[in-house]
Amino acid sequence: MIETIRWRENKIRILDQTLLPNSENYINLNSVDSLIDAIKKLKVRGAPALGIAGAMGMALGIQKITKLDSLSDIMKDLADRLKASRPTAVNLKWGIQRILDFVQSRVWELDNLKKSAIEEAENVLNEDIRMCQSLGKVGEALIPNNARILTHCNTGGLATGGYGTALGVIQCAHESGKKPFVYADETRPLLQGARLTTWELKQNGIEHALICDNMAGYLMQQKKVDCVIVGADRIAANGDTANKIGTYSLAVLCEKHRIPFYVAAPSSTVDSSTAQGKDIRIEERPPEEITTMFGYHIAPDNTPVYNPAFDVTPAELITAIVTEKQIFYGTKYAFTN
Amino acid sequence: MIETIRWRENKIRILDQTLLPNSENYINLNSVDSLIDAIKKLKVRGAPALGIAGAMGMALGIQKITKLDSLSDIMKDLADRLKASRPTAVNLKWGIQRILDFVQSRVWELDNLKKSAIEEAENVLNEDIRMCQSLGKVGEALIPNNARILTHCNTGGLATGGYGTALGVIQCAHESGKKPFVYADETRPLLQGARLTTWELKQNGIEHALICDNMAGYLMQQKKVDCVIVGADRIAANGDTANKIGTYSLAVLCEKHRIPFYVAAPSSTVDSSTAQGKDIRIEERPPEEITTMFGYHIAPDNTPVYNPAFDVTPAELITAIVTEKQIFYGTKYAFTN
Repeated sequence: MIETIRWRENKIRILDQTLLPNSENYINLNSVDSLIDAIKKLKVRGAPALGIAGAMGMALGIQKITKLDSLSDIMKDLADRLKASRPTAVNLKWGIQRILDFVQSRVWELDNLKKSAIEEAENVLNEDIRMCQSLGKVGEALIPNNARILTHCNTGGLATGGYGTALGVIQCAHESGKKPFVYADETRPLLQGARLTTWELKQNGIEHALICDNMAGYLMQQKKVDCVIVGADRIAANGDTANKIGTYSLAVLCEKHRIPFYVAAPSSTVDSSTAQGKDIRIEERPPEEITTMFGYHIAPDNTPVYNPAFDVTPAELITAIVTEKQIFYGTKYAFTN
Repeated sequence: MIETIRWRENKIRILDQTLLPNSENYINLNSVDSLIDAIKKLKVRGAPALGIAGAMGMALGIQKITKLDSLSDIMKDLADRLKASRPTAVNLKWGIQRILDFVQSRVWELDNLKKSAIEEAENVLNEDIRMCQSLGKVGEALIPNNARILTHCNTGGLATGGYGTALGVIQCAHESGKKPFVYADETRPLLQGARLTTWELKQNGIEHALICDNMAGYLMQQKKVDCVIVGADRIAANGDTANKIGTYSLAVLCEKHRIPFYVAAPSSTVDSSTAQGKDIRIEERPPEEITTMFGYHIAPDNTPVYNPAFDVTPAELITAIVTEKQIFYGTKYAFTN
């Protein structure tokens, strides 16, 4: 299993995903600020992995506490700083809240607080791995033998504690001998599909081909795609789903070609306090993500850019939403946490 | 006007488009082989520009002839080599055929043949410029004031003899004071939108924003796009249109959002000998176009890739096809050359 994010010797150790596939480099984060920087730069990314990062970030902040006088103020400040690092994925907030609730649930001695916060953050990690494994097993029912599956962004072990969501479903189908074939969208601008998904597929021996995002429609027109399965950064109570930019276009293309469009995400991604998709704030990221590639300028200097990192797919375009608990079929959903 | 391709001192001079926007470098092509290499590497690209390249390539080949004995064999060989350089754009064949027909139309003395072939190739260039200017004026009727127009790939002066097709229509609207705003798809894998279209828009003072291809659907969902206008590499008799990969997805997204989808191309792009889209051969290009960027590897070594360079948009998704002659509205077309 990929050790995407782990607690090691009082530090958070992550695999730096910005350097993949060319270099497999683990880095140790010793402060909340260095974690926030790593989150902003997508060294650690993926909604479930961000949930773990949120919890471990809180635990890391707690290690620096020297007295318990103003614990609730310190906790609030820690939570606010971590939450601000990425606004769209709900799991980040969820992981932070887990530790907040845990700390508020009793009266602490300092040493015990520090030790227990680490344990609780590691619980979040271990629960994520179990949840994703269950999700894979539940979702596998959707995958026929020899299915040609198109996916977007990276939803593998790199996006989680080690076992993927949408890619975990595919992994499960592969382990069951169903011989899935995966078309991996490269996923501009940051190329998570090209850099990360193909890297995981290769490691796991799953047959695949890399395509540019704009080729998906042509593949569907040629009847080369049996289903699309993607992850989620936030699922609203009505089933509207925020996910990596480009997901909505895929859902529209699936509707046109009568291809099933599936979302696979652990239930921690469901945010029943968000009524519908239009209530989800969409993060806009820096123009340089589009205008430069590894330092090389691919557009004229100062080219104006629009760079939303996510989009929202309305529930009526989603054939089914899979969590670790069950498959929700339909065009209308009503989630409660 | 951009001097995309010109006849200069018995050579073909082109602006090397692979180096834009970072360097504006003109190169002289002294042999048919060097032209074929430049076409294959997309140093010169764009359907209308390829038509001119085909004609000038024939003229260049004719300059090397030393005797007229086997003229028809030489001409056939020249034509076959040039045609094979890119299979999808019909204009390349069309430009080659123009010179073939011209040469076959009379009996030649060698010197006169050489001189006349150059003149005829330059006629092709000058007609292209006039055709595109007419196309711009005809098509401009489709563009409302303050329209927010999404376009794909590069269809500007760089894709033609100097005045664009789809981008020429936008240019014409701009010159009429209609203040168009352009969303330019970056157009993976070769980034013609990011590298070339933004470069032209900036030079011409047209307001714009660069986006990744996978953002178009989200923009439409947010009602930020009033129409889409693209060029064409080949238009079949029934109106089915081959164009840069990603065009079909845009047409489906336009249908979903009830946004007009326009194709703008000179009538030399219409190939009435091709009955329908499925008769068009789609060029597949090398995997390295997707797996590497300026020498940097963005996917694991030997990642399998699917890299079709074009797709076909069925006529029923096209609101109107504009040529230099008129606007053809409808969902069914019946073109004759």
